[in-house]
Amino acid sequence: MQVSIDEIRSGHKPAIARAITLVENERRQIWPLLKELFATSELASLVGVTGPPGCGKSTLVEKLVAGWLEEGERIGVIAIDPSSEFSGGALLGDRIRMDGISSEPEVFIRSMATRGYLGGLNPAIFDTVLILSAAGYDRIVIETVGVGQNEIDIVNLADTTLVVTMPEVGDEIQAFKAGLMEAGDIFVLNKADHPRVNRMELVLQQMLELNSSGEEQEFPRLLKTIATRGEGVDEVLEAVGDHRLKLEKSGDIARHRKQVMRRHILHLLEEKVREQLIDPLLQSEDFKQILDQVVKRKADPYSTAEDLLARLKSADQQREEVNLSHEN
Amino acid sequence: MQVSIDEIRSGHKPAIARAITLVENERRQIWPLLKELFATSELASLVGVTGPPGCGKSTLVEKLVAGWLEEGERIGVIAIDPSSEFSGGALLGDRIRMDGISSEPEVFIRSMATRGYLGGLNPAIFDTVLILSAAGYDRIVIETVGVGQNEIDIVNLADTTLVVTMPEVGDEIQAFKAGLMEAGDIFVLNKADHPRVNRMELVLQQMLELNSSGEEQEFPRLLKTIATRGEGVDEVLEAVGDHRLKLEKSGDIARHRKQVMRRHILHLLEEKVREQLIDPLLQSEDFKQILDQVVKRKADPYSTAEDLLARLKSADQQREEVNLSHEN
Repeated sequence: MQVSIDEIRSGHKPAIARAITLVENERRQIWPLLKELFATSELASLVGVTGPPGCGKSTLVEKLVAGWLEEGERIGVIAIDPSSEFSGGALLGDRIRMDGISSEPEVFIRSMATRGYLGGLNPAIFDTVLILSAAGYDRIVIETVGVGQNEIDIVNLADTTLVVTMPEVGDEIQAFKAGLMEAGDIFVLNKADHPRVNRMELVLQQMLELNSSGEEQEFPRLLKTIATRGEGVDEVLEAVGDHRLKLEKSGDIARHRKQVMRRHILHLLEEKVREQLIDPLLQSEDFKQILDQVVKRKADPYSTAEDLLARLKSADQQREEVNLSHEN
Repeated sequence: MQVSIDEIRSGHKPAIARAITLVENERRQIWPLLKELFATSELASLVGVTGPPGCGKSTLVEKLVAGWLEEGERIGVIAIDPSSEFSGGALLGDRIRMDGISSEPEVFIRSMATRGYLGGLNPAIFDTVLILSAAGYDRIVIETVGVGQNEIDIVNLADTTLVVTMPEVGDEIQAFKAGLMEAGDIFVLNKADHPRVNRMELVLQQMLELNSSGEEQEFPRLLKTIATRGEGVDEVLEAVGDHRLKLEKSGDIARHRKQVMRRHILHLLEEKVREQLIDPLLQSEDFKQILDQVVKRKADPYSTAEDLLARLKSADQQREEVNLSHEN
């Protein structure tokens, strides 16, 4: 499978799709292309959308994308699907649900599974963002289904984070929403035609006040929508624009992007360490014997890990000795 | 904070709690204790419980634990809470909800956050399982809230996995349930007094048949419960017992435990590599300058990761050279 940098730059959709497939499955092969794209592409605006299942995230994303399209933007959507490591692929639910925008020539939608990447999900998302940026998409929406680690990771990547919720969610959903309270820039209370919307709004306001510094602030902002009818969507679009301006005016965007880059380098290094140092060690005959000893409790996993690390590190010491002898 | 191995073995709850806190926060300090515990403790039976938010997992776990207590078992419960990396701690929701059993002397309940561990959540869960096993708990229930990566990881650790669901869940919940279909040993359709339970039961049966080999099999098993009233709980207890017997008779338990041990060693090694090789590299003055270059797009993260890896690996080559010169 070959992908040319020119095809990506010209926005050729099948080439973009092939490149992302390489990001997912053939990371070694795609690195040279990613290096070239990085050197010559400005990263797009990144908007993260997260929240509990069933709150209407996909519908809201569809309406937001329609709004940005009207403003002449080209939009990429990365939908992070929970997926089985057993069955492999993503579940495609979001791709199907976003039918209303998926046929638009100025929109590129891609579902990505949460599992099965050598280096984890994060570097694969960043690489996809880079490809879509190089292909000329002005704004990239990263939507996650579910709660927990992945959501926080995506919050860390996005410039602006929308936390979507709805009235009358169960206790557990309340709980994990709390976990996202400090992360959201814009809170969207969807399904605002629900009879208990006022109660939920009050709860959200209290939680936001609890996390605030006490001073009057522009963000986080709390907005109500009925995404299915498009109500309140314009206000969300405006808030995303305002937040972007605020990031640029304050210089926070530069600090944020630096953190994103730092983490990406770390993730890439971990990926390479795994591939070139750790995996060969674990695939050795030697390790199979050690594992048998651990299973029989004649060795323990902690000492075993220390021994394996020592093998990686002993090289360092040897090297220092060589350096010393050179100095002599 | 000091914890003695004798206190753990005698089941002293404050000591167990302190040891788990060390697992979460002071991993280096706890390794010597874990080594000792591993050498002298048989791992308890591990039951994983997962499923969408609001399906009644905690209530079901409470009833199951009550059943096992009646059979004279001592039970540990590890509730994996989604948590904010920003606020730190777990949300304690499950601990509060499980009030009915948390005062029992033969039960130990602990909430663990999904974030903030140097080596990730997995080694911390295994270490906690080890501590609870050493403290004499016969069975350990690992309950997860949410969907995605964490759930699959916990499925990989547990001997027997319960996937709990309920009638009338949204599309997204359906979708991620599908992702767990191949992982579950026992499927529990809770809230079985709901009017649409029959429809949901049919959907589940069809999904299970889709994943089955066609032959009549004892597992996965599909059961209905009304956990709040305790209905159907005995059948779930029986199914967990049957599944354990099947694992032992087939020898699958040994194969499974070997895989668990292999993954744990890998996770521990990754933790040490991060702590002793990668983090020092990223904290160096040198790296700060490289990062500035990447931010200015005068360098790219991919080449940077390769350069950093080369620094780790160059030691290996040096060492080979040394060996060669010795041979001469």
